[in-house]
Amino acid sequence: MKMKQDIAKQPMIVGQPVLVMVDFQGNGGSGGYVPGVEGGVPHVGTLEERKQRMARARELVDAARDAGVPVVFIQEVHRPDGVDFGRELDGDEDVHCVENLPSTAISMEIGYRPGDYHIPKRRYSAFYGTDLEILLKGLKAQTLILTGGLTDVCVHYTFVDGHQGDYYCRVVEDCVGGSSQEAHDASLRAMEYLQAGARRKAAEILEAFKAIKASKAA
Amino acid sequence: MKMKQDIAKQPMIVGQPVLVMVDFQGNGGSGGYVPGVEGGVPHVGTLEERKQRMARARELVDAARDAGVPVVFIQEVHRPDGVDFGRELDGDEDVHCVENLPSTAISMEIGYRPGDYHIPKRRYSAFYGTDLEILLKGLKAQTLILTGGLTDVCVHYTFVDGHQGDYYCRVVEDCVGGSSQEAHDASLRAMEYLQAGARRKAAEILEAFKAIKASKAA
Amino acid sequence: MKMKQDIAKQPMIVGQPVLVMVDFQGNGGSGGYVPGVEGGVPHVGTLEERKQRMARARELVDAARDAGVPVVFIQEVHRPDGVDFGRELDGDEDVHCVENLPSTAISMEIGYRPGDYHIPKRRYSAFYGTDLEILLKGLKAQTLILTGGLTDVCVHYTFVDGHQGDYYCRVVEDCVGGSSQEAHDASLRAMEYLQAGARRKAAEILEAFKAIKASKAA
Amino acid sequence: MKMKQDIAKQPMIVGQPVLVMVDFQGNGGSGGYVPGVEGGVPHVGTLEERKQRMARARELVDAARDAGVPVVFIQEVHRPDGVDFGRELDGDEDVHCVENLPSTAISMEIGYRPGDYHIPKRRYSAFYGTDLEILLKGLKAQTLILTGGLTDVCVHYTFVDGHQGDYYCRVVEDCVGGSSQEAHDASLRAMEYLQAGARRKAAEILEAFKAIKASKAA
Repeated sequence: MKMKQDIAKQPMIVGQPVLVMVDFQGNGGSGGYVPGVEGGVPHVGTLEERKQRMARARELVDAARDAGVPVVFIQEVHRPDGVDFGRELDGDEDVHCVENLPSTAISMEIGYRPGDYHIPKRRYSAFYGTDLEILLKGLKAQTLILTGGLTDVCVHYTFVDGHQGDYYCRVVEDCVGGSSQEAHDASLRAMEYLQAGARRKAAEILEAFKAIKASKAA
Repeated sequence: MKMKQDIAKQPMIVGQPVLVMVDFQGNGGSGGYVPGVEGGVPHVGTLEERKQRMARARELVDAARDAGVPVVFIQEVHRPDGVDFGRELDGDEDVHCVENLPSTAISMEIGYRPGDYHIPKRRYSAFYGTDLEILLKGLKAQTLILTGGLTDVCVHYTFVDGHQGDYYCRVVEDCVGGSSQEAHDASLRAMEYLQAGARRKAAEILEAFKAIKASKAA
Repeated sequence: MKMKQDIAKQPMIVGQPVLVMVDFQGNGGSGGYVPGVEGGVPHVGTLEERKQRMARARELVDAARDAGVPVVFIQEVHRPDGVDFGRELDGDEDVHCVENLPSTAISMEIGYRPGDYHIPKRRYSAFYGTDLEILLKGLKAQTLILTGGLTDVCVHYTFVDGHQGDYYCRVVEDCVGGSSQEAHDASLRAMEYLQAGARRKAAEILEAFKAIKASKAA
Repeated sequence: MKMKQDIAKQPMIVGQPVLVMVDFQGNGGSGGYVPGVEGGVPHVGTLEERKQRMARARELVDAARDAGVPVVFIQEVHRPDGVDFGRELDGDEDVHCVENLPSTAISMEIGYRPGDYHIPKRRYSAFYGTDLEILLKGLKAQTLILTGGLTDVCVHYTFVDGHQGDYYCRVVEDCVGGSSQEAHDASLRAMEYLQAGARRKAAEILEAFKAIKASKAA
């Protein structure tokens, strides 16, 4: 077992990065916010905090586009007849993200535009039952930079599947929101346990994107 | 969002149960113990605590066999040339579970016998890159009862994939051990968040197995 | 090895059937037809033959709805920037099924209605990188009844993945069209090799659906 | 649709090649041969033809080792209690490849040595429910060169999954054997339909391996 001081931090970005926006949805999401609407999924943070997370995440989207870094928008959806909820209603979560409800749509503030890479999912991991890996292979992606929510559920489990699939995974900790402060913190530690240097701040990623842009101009 | 008092606990066992022994390995495992050998993976608990976890887990194996409940032994393995570690060495874990080392073998104390269902895996989730679902479909499994370790890694992520695959998942909390007390506790809460009633004690499962045995005799 | 006369035909439908309409798309599809448009994918059969296949397939859709048998519409799609074609352009097929082109839409004649189960895919098997299995698990599906095209590509490989996933698979041979007569015939034989009794005619399936409807009224 | 003369043949090997030996098993296999034992799976070809296929395949193994090209041995296995046959006995195939029977072992003649990459599978595609992709990612594989059998079943469907996973796939047509001459021929055409230049002869692959060896010496 490694002693803590021996765990070298990996480079922040290895090879081709891809920015992944997990479930920035009007309701039942994470970094997003819907004043007054619970959305079936518990979420933590004041309205002000959530607006700030959204704003930082939006900055990342804009900087990624500017640097030619691919951005992928994930959206959790469930069929109206409930046939595909599986076990998702057996715990703390209630009905959420039903298709075609306005509250299920990707948040306008996050900068999603028609034509952007959009991947709907019906479970927590953005890899589970989706074409995410098909897209990532096409993009020759090596590093996934995750934002959104819930930190402890969809972000965490997307990170795990990315990790198991050999991707370098980073979580932008000031751009994710969890079901509770405790769960949020524990999951960030869990992700750092899997990949040293996984936990990043938006400011670091912004700098990296600017450097990428500059290197392409050179 | 459900209020805590409204979250009904699900039946402990729904349909066909299967007992899953996650990584009871001499080293780099969990419920198992190897005095003096670190195994490349951090684990928490005194030797005495781990021996007790192992003993309780062993009781479950014997009771499952007695009641005709299928038991599946999962074993994490990695090729000696290191080609399949992926990102697993990028965080807190060091080289672990190398094939053919005595310390990688399933612990003798857990009751594994040649001919038992045995599933080797190369990542954390027992579903990832394995034939576990093929076996579970063949067994018509509906409820997975998880023991072993690490609580926060292999048990947690196997639970998540079982959950996403529509299985009822239970974690026997006094038969799992984590990388730290904190991570162990947080993961048990995460699993309970996903499926109310997921957290169980060995004594409850034992009672359930005895009832199953009795119902078959009737 | 079984002698041909010993291969018992399985019941046509086992448990819950689901009717799967594979790639009935205006162009680049199969059972569908688009006069004068090649669509990037070779297809065989006169316009008249294809119209008849479509008509028979449409009858199945209507009968399935009438009997309460779930119907799933599969649609192959590719991103306009070509990032997700993978190896699909390395052989006989040219660019096909680009998102948002009118010719990629599900054929109007097949009876698809908004709200129906719709699964977009980016490869040949309807299971690959999609949520089909999530839906089938939710429907408790046991038998898949395949129509559409291409017989030798998307239908064949969807059948194989269904077969590997333990589903009873049936191909309605007068409701599928292939890339060539030879490939169509060979694939039907390949599917029958995997599951005796896989090859069915639309008339048989219609009868079965009517019987299901009658049994529910009883 | 491309006209036949416009379909450019792809380079025979793109990037890192990996030689895949599919089910060279004493019985129930393909390129292998077991005089007088049927093995539950139909296979075509005289004993002499099969011995020659095996010999050519063995040459490829030796040349791959000599050139530092990774070799992966796939082996189909089924649990003795039959729990994992799924639908595999519903068609032309009878019980085959039961674990631990001498006839299930990888053929001695093919050059398999303890320590080689070995992947057991329980279905047809070598990707389905196995860690093959984990290994291929670790090897940074880009081109899969398939040998073994059955041409029309395990080789064909492994090719398809490799193709869907963006690998360049090649089938060594004089090193594969099918369930019938007809099925063997049709499947070779199907693989060529997917990737122009997929069909290769052992002599070509041998030359390529020698060139790889020479380039490393330079």
